[in-house]
Amino acid sequence: MTTTATTLKGQPLDRQTLDAMLRRRLFFTPAFEIYGGVAGLFDYGPPGCSLQANIVDLWRKHFILEEDMLEIDTTVLTPHEVLKTSGHVDKFADWMCKDPKNGDILRADHFVEDVLESRLKGDKEARGEKVEEEDDPKKKKKRKTKTEAVKLDDALVQEYEEILARIDNYNGEELGELIKKYDLKNPATGVQPSPPVAFNLMFQTSIGPSSNLPGYLRPETAQGQFLNFAKLLDFNMQQMPFASASIGRSYRNEISPRAGLLRVREFLMAEIEHFVDPEGGKKHHRFPEIDAIELTLLDRHTQLAGKTDVKKMTIGDAVRNKVVDNETLGYFLARIHLFLQKIGVDMTKVRFRQHMENEMAHYATDCWDAELLTSSGWIECVGCADRSAYDLSVHAKKTGAPLVVRERLDEPRVFEEWQVEIDRKKFGPQFKKDGKTVEAALEATNQEQREKLAKQLAENGELELEVAGVGNGIVKVSKDLVKVEFRKRVENTREYTPNVIEPSFGIGRIMYSLIEHVYWNRATEDGGDEARGVLSFPPTVAPTKVLIVPLSANKQFQPFVSKISQKLRKIGISARVDSSSATIGKRYSRNDELGTPLGVTIDFQTVQDSTITLRDRDSTKQVRADEDTIVAAIQSLVTGAREWKDIATELPAFEGQEVDVAVR
Amino acid sequence: MTTTATTLKGQPLDRQTLDAMLRRRLFFTPAFEIYGGVAGLFDYGPPGCSLQANIVDLWRKHFILEEDMLEIDTTVLTPHEVLKTSGHVDKFADWMCKDPKNGDILRADHFVEDVLESRLKGDKEARGEKVEEEDDPKKKKKRKTKTEAVKLDDALVQEYEEILARIDNYNGEELGELIKKYDLKNPATGVQPSPPVAFNLMFQTSIGPSSNLPGYLRPETAQGQFLNFAKLLDFNMQQMPFASASIGRSYRNEISPRAGLLRVREFLMAEIEHFVDPEGGKKHHRFPEIDAIELTLLDRHTQLAGKTDVKKMTIGDAVRNKVVDNETLGYFLARIHLFLQKIGVDMTKVRFRQHMENEMAHYATDCWDAELLTSSGWIECVGCADRSAYDLSVHAKKTGAPLVVRERLDEPRVFEEWQVEIDRKKFGPQFKKDGKTVEAALEATNQEQREKLAKQLAENGELELEVAGVGNGIVKVSKDLVKVEFRKRVENTREYTPNVIEPSFGIGRIMYSLIEHVYWNRATEDGGDEARGVLSFPPTVAPTKVLIVPLSANKQFQPFVSKISQKLRKIGISARVDSSSATIGKRYSRNDELGTPLGVTIDFQTVQDSTITLRDRDSTKQVRADEDTIVAAIQSLVTGAREWKDIATELPAFEGQEVDVAVR
Repeated sequence: MTTTATTLKGQPLDRQTLDAMLRRRLFFTPAFEIYGGVAGLFDYGPPGCSLQANIVDLWRKHFILEEDMLEIDTTVLTPHEVLKTSGHVDKFADWMCKDPKNGDILRADHFVEDVLESRLKGDKEARGEKVEEEDDPKKKKKRKTKTEAVKLDDALVQEYEEILARIDNYNGEELGELIKKYDLKNPATGVQPSPPVAFNLMFQTSIGPSSNLPGYLRPETAQGQFLNFAKLLDFNMQQMPFASASIGRSYRNEISPRAGLLRVREFLMAEIEHFVDPEGGKKHHRFPEIDAIELTLLDRHTQLAGKTDVKKMTIGDAVRNKVVDNETLGYFLARIHLFLQKIGVDMTKVRFRQHMENEMAHYATDCWDAELLTSSGWIECVGCADRSAYDLSVHAKKTGAPLVVRERLDEPRVFEEWQVEIDRKKFGPQFKKDGKTVEAALEATNQEQREKLAKQLAENGELELEVAGVGNGIVKVSKDLVKVEFRKRVENTREYTPNVIEPSFGIGRIMYSLIEHVYWNRATEDGGDEARGVLSFPPTVAPTKVLIVPLSANKQFQPFVSKISQKLRKIGISARVDSSSATIGKRYSRNDELGTPLGVTIDFQTVQDSTITLRDRDSTKQVRADEDTIVAAIQSLVTGAREWKDIATELPAFEGQEVDVAVR
Repeated sequence: MTTTATTLKGQPLDRQTLDAMLRRRLFFTPAFEIYGGVAGLFDYGPPGCSLQANIVDLWRKHFILEEDMLEIDTTVLTPHEVLKTSGHVDKFADWMCKDPKNGDILRADHFVEDVLESRLKGDKEARGEKVEEEDDPKKKKKRKTKTEAVKLDDALVQEYEEILARIDNYNGEELGELIKKYDLKNPATGVQPSPPVAFNLMFQTSIGPSSNLPGYLRPETAQGQFLNFAKLLDFNMQQMPFASASIGRSYRNEISPRAGLLRVREFLMAEIEHFVDPEGGKKHHRFPEIDAIELTLLDRHTQLAGKTDVKKMTIGDAVRNKVVDNETLGYFLARIHLFLQKIGVDMTKVRFRQHMENEMAHYATDCWDAELLTSSGWIECVGCADRSAYDLSVHAKKTGAPLVVRERLDEPRVFEEWQVEIDRKKFGPQFKKDGKTVEAALEATNQEQREKLAKQLAENGELELEVAGVGNGIVKVSKDLVKVEFRKRVENTREYTPNVIEPSFGIGRIMYSLIEHVYWNRATEDGGDEARGVLSFPPTVAPTKVLIVPLSANKQFQPFVSKISQKLRKIGISARVDSSSATIGKRYSRNDELGTPLGVTIDFQTVQDSTITLRDRDSTKQVRADEDTIVAAIQSLVTGAREWKDIATELPAFEGQEVDVAVR
């Protein structure tokens, strides 16, 4: 298992060089940069925008179309009451400390993590062990904390390491205790920050002209799906199980955003809510299809023991051994694995980590994160939670809406139970205004109480019931008004609140991690030392599929450029023409940085015999053939039907002098 | 020209029946309905979500891909300073009145419109003229205002009509005067509301944990594009003209949202910012391609004359006659026309209306709206504004960022002019701390002033200059410190701020208007009186392309259903299976309401000879052939290569008894 961030070719990954390249090529850029920027807000330029669209498109095909999920599009603006009920108003918070000296606001868990990691690094230095920046997957965060070479006791080193392994499991009070116990100080001031307080992460606003309806920007798309559950079930003609899905922006007012695209305040999510019957072990009918897929798992128990060792296991075994709770949860873990593989993620840099008890969101009963290894460490890119019946239950309770499934039973169910039968004609005149209250109190009794009441009726001809607010609080009801009897009840339908399995994807995080996984430096590979970045995206996700370059500005090339552009556009393949005056080599390098997998050159030979060359980004090898043959080759490469090695054997290689010189 | 809302077949359009159908089929639904809903917020269910995606996809192909526009994706959260500079904080407002009696908040222009329209209707009734609900394109709004049959003077009727024709041209003060002059009263209370005050339409929030950065949800995607101008120009390798584009949500805190999807608080926009050199008449190199396209125009002068008569004119003539200001603006009007046609809008219900002076947004110099006729009247669905250099200029001035184009001139430009040359070595010691101020004042002089200063130097050996805040406000500079001479200056580059032409699309409004345009009632056509709604979407935009129906639940049909589903999925055609127990006719009716253009039936003959039937939604005619022939026919219909009439002549008709009976 890889544990440190590297390029695609295993070179140490230089984050700063990569970031500079991504900004230069306008994959993304800090939003409002000419106004000084706003932390945690980024804009995507054309290549980033296209990469995002391609990932979303694959996601839609892999999940929504494959399983006929019901895609819906709900609003970001959400009234207070909805998020109060869902628990987000009270519980969707991070722990925040304040430095009393300079007013710095720190996210408590990150602060503890930073200081302890810095002390461990200082210890390594003091022991004379090598501390390479590149060896450290969290170096980005480290810059904030100055490292001092101080040797620690062996026992203390172990304590620190164990704390870091379960850092996500501490609540605010516990983080406060760690800060006190280990005297953790803000490196900027040398002062211990104040005890952690909860900071709600939702952006607040008010809806309407009279400012009377407080609301928030949604922190997840899920609530919009839950609120529409009854309508979706109708649309699905009452068939269970089914899933809804939403792709849209969500918002979290991060305390101190950092690590570029990995922790932002506005982001694109793709979320699935799979509604399943809680009875019968949450089986999934397509589980056999993925049973044999091997995943890399880091379970809860390992982490609580202060360790981070992963296990490789088929998802079938993981479910059978109860490492993963049920088939439906397991099915989606495997489907997430397949999706990441499909878009080009380096699968040696993926692990599924189970949440620890305190770490789980307030609504979850079990949760696994797909984490991707990057230069900022292991990053949660996909969460897969079992939200049980939590959300549907709380919304149903609050609104009275029946967010349930009613299922016709093949065989009726028979219950034998104590039943209460009230004679309403006599009940009203007897109790007058208290009638309803007494009736409700009777209906609310449980089986055990009813058995006692039946006994009272039989023995005394009346029963005694506590009813708060009526008379002295004790009400007597005689046997001519009520019967309590042990009877049979037959049910032909069953009513239940479905459980929800929720795979939730952070598209921006996946996108950034993917970029790190496919990035490498051609110069280093070739033995040079300049930066010649390449992004080896699979053709399906690459922002642009084909670069078209005329050899020079010679007007003879223009008709060929137009013709090939139009042909590619017609078959839906995105291409860009670069007819700038830069050398062919420079133009290809520019497109290596953009991750364009294929290049077509129009040269003087084209003018003579209509042949064109096709270049493979990764090998820089070229072939030459007539236009239609090359277009067919491009189409087969872009759809994934064939690979470059197939094309290279079929078509004659081309080693044009000027091109070769320029690329080298 | 059509002037009232009708169905596709010219029947009167019953908005309530249509709305009920759209909600039943989950095209859209009020957001948070189980919590009582929030005005102006709607969720899209599966068919609405898919329809929206198809329209956006066509938009992207028609505009972005066709012209290699640079698509970017920017944040919704926008800091205060940006929108202060753009003018939105001060000017992006509607006029709002308050009813002093019941506290009702009214949008002033809508209030004046409602009351005057109601009086005109009352007049018609009093004169015994027929007032049909269906004849009235604004009936939806009317329900708020109770109509009384009171006859008005002929002159007053004309006054009211003229006011209504230019209702969008009044400012707050003028609306207040109209309310007073005509004694307009809130029908709910019989009381005249308070004078209109400005209400800013932006949702406010604050960014970061210490609430110190006020921000808004963007009211348009445009600002994010302007702020990235310099980076986009770089990305485009300094080539002009070019366009950027964004598809994303924007937010407007409408005073009193109404008319369903037509006036909402959160909506999807698709905006293009086309950057063009202001010199040379804003020509467009592709204008000849659209020169002959005929548009329906309602110009500014007609409206100011109190009229609403449209003119039909080719866009070429409109530009040549200066009805439309320039080629680039005209080019986009024609491209908008073609887009609306492509998605299936009824082109007899489209007009381009020019904004009147007071109506234009604060940034615009000219603006045309593509308006679509619906049951709520003429609705602005696309705006096409010439924003001149407004936005780039204000942001450049505020931030100092060079939002300009630097162009190498083929022939250098020569200027002869008065120039100031300061001897800085002597200047500093002479003026000390005031040096910079005096220097700046000298540099700021214009040509006329410089000519005078040169004369003073020649005559007196010194010049006199007003410099506020230095000494007594008059500064003398001797000729050994400064020269003012008439000289030649040669410029090899030209620097300019581009102008912006902005086509801006409200996707939700287009989508809803399109639905009204393609809606009709099959029962009315057939002489029946029940509601049998059909949505005749073109196959390209239809949410689902094919319905697959097995004749019954017979297990023999299942393998055929799976096979055809998989074949269609493989060629990227969205299909849905309906294997419910409803009759075939009911299942087809359900899909007529969903706008599914094609239906495939699997029956007992399929089991025998593998043939299947294909049904056309609009004619309900069917053909029968083997599976591959039908799949090929579906593909050609969905891509638009062929039409149903072609298929109907090529393949044998099918008139299956049970199907026919059920559909009729």
